[in-house]
Amino acid sequence: MMQLYIANKNYSSWSMRPWLVLKAFHIPFEEVMIPFPKERNTGTFKQEILAINLNGKVPVLVQNDVLVWDSLAICEYLAEQYAEKNLWPLDSKLRARARCISAEMHSGFPNIRNLCGMNLRANLAEKGAELWHESEDLYADVARSDQIFSERPHIDSFLCGEFSIADAFYAPIVTRLKTYDLPVSKSTQIYMQNVLNHFAVKEWIEGALAEDAWVNYLEPYQIQK
Amino acid sequence: MMQLYIANKNYSSWSMRPWLVLKAFHIPFEEVMIPFPKERNTGTFKQEILAINLNGKVPVLVQNDVLVWDSLAICEYLAEQYAEKNLWPLDSKLRARARCISAEMHSGFPNIRNLCGMNLRANLAEKGAELWHESEDLYADVARSDQIFSERPHIDSFLCGEFSIADAFYAPIVTRLKTYDLPVSKSTQIYMQNVLNHFAVKEWIEGALAEDAWVNYLEPYQIQK
Ligand SMILES: N[C@@H](CCC(=O)N[C@@H](CS)C(=O)NCC(=O)O)C(=O)O
Ligand SMILES: N[C@@H](CCC(=O)N[C@@H](CS)C(=O)NCC(=O)O)C(=O)O
Repeated sequence: MMQLYIANKNYSSWSMRPWLVLKAFHIPFEEVMIPFPKERNTGTFKQEILAINLNGKVPVLVQNDVLVWDSLAICEYLAEQYAEKNLWPLDSKLRARARCISAEMHSGFPNIRNLCGMNLRANLAEKGAELWHESEDLYADVARSDQIFSERPHIDSFLCGEFSIADAFYAPIVTRLKTYDLPVSKSTQIYMQNVLNHFAVKEWIEGALAEDAWVNYLEPYQIQK
Repeated sequence: MMQLYIANKNYSSWSMRPWLVLKAFHIPFEEVMIPFPKERNTGTFKQEILAINLNGKVPVLVQNDVLVWDSLAICEYLAEQYAEKNLWPLDSKLRARARCISAEMHSGFPNIRNLCGMNLRANLAEKGAELWHESEDLYADVARSDQIFSERPHIDSFLCGEFSIADAFYAPIVTRLKTYDLPVSKSTQIYMQNVLNHFAVKEWIEGALAEDAWVNYLEPYQIQK
């Protein structure tokens, strides 16, 4: 069975994406957790992940003698290996769109990433309100995701029809919008609810809530109780 | 015929990637140039590109009623449309690797991107030496690309065998290593030479040298003569 190496479900947005794809499409895999250290550059995280892959980052997928790192490459690899499951939309125009928004997410949205790190067990609504008033750059990223969410084919559909890799890519944006309570359109609120109700997303979040590790350098806005 | 919207060949590294793929694989297309303005947020660049695509960035590919933006999504789209041309390596393990390194490039290497912007007509060796001594982060990105380059299957091959999307993705790193004269291994120097001798890369660079537009905000290290 293939293995997916991930880090803490509470914090690791890059790990979340391929994990959601595997779950959502019922692809069997073994999850291997390499937790982040409490303080940056301590502990064995780096050592453990470097032993698997020279780029030293999670997620990594291992299937027999094939090593696939980087969340987007993992998803493309899975889409090929399980072609019959349509991890990307079947319709070629929707598929192109799904790839565009996923690749845009992969290389973009630096402000929401940096200012609003994923933190599933936290409620950072107050901090979110502050950031919202301070940062025009945050506004730009939220506005762009709001736009992408509102362009889905139907109010009740996922981004490009059925749940696809694109939704997995935007799931950590959905959870950030919620955690930091950032203002979005009515249509986006409906999309967010559909994502948060998806069984794979629910299972990931439950996993995150069951964790108790505190990673100091990923908690810029809270003090450990 | 499909159209590829790009910006200045001298500066636009994101535009260069899909353009190289189209050229390298002899796929006919019409190039549409939307030059950057001289000063940030002036001129009609933003307006012109927003009229085509709401994310407001180049490159964009238009084929009939399909709009594909983001360099990586464009390449995946082309790989599907021209499946017989093997834009990704035919061997599935090499293909997985090609996707890993391309996706890693797409979302990573922030330091070499930010500190060493692409500027094909410039010689910034002095600035490169300075940056090299000042920035550990730059060192990390150069070391990682050096590692990726040195892992190619054969000293005379491209990154994953024949020229593929992966080489197009790293071409703007090759040109930066040259422009800023950054120290790399002997093996990487050979790879760089092979990339710089590739006909598609040569044609792009010739195009860049024929341009005379000066874009102030992309010239942090030089004063216009
Ligand atoms: N582009 C990569 C990013 C992976 C990444 O940055 N992972 C983080 C965790 S979410 C990591 O492993 N950081 C550890 C480190 O850099 O030391 C992907 O999509 O997989
Ligand atoms: N991830 C995108 C990045 C595109 C991008 O940032 N393009 C730059 C030019 S190289 C751009 O259009 N900048 C104009 C702007 O942001 O106003 C891709 O791969 O296509």
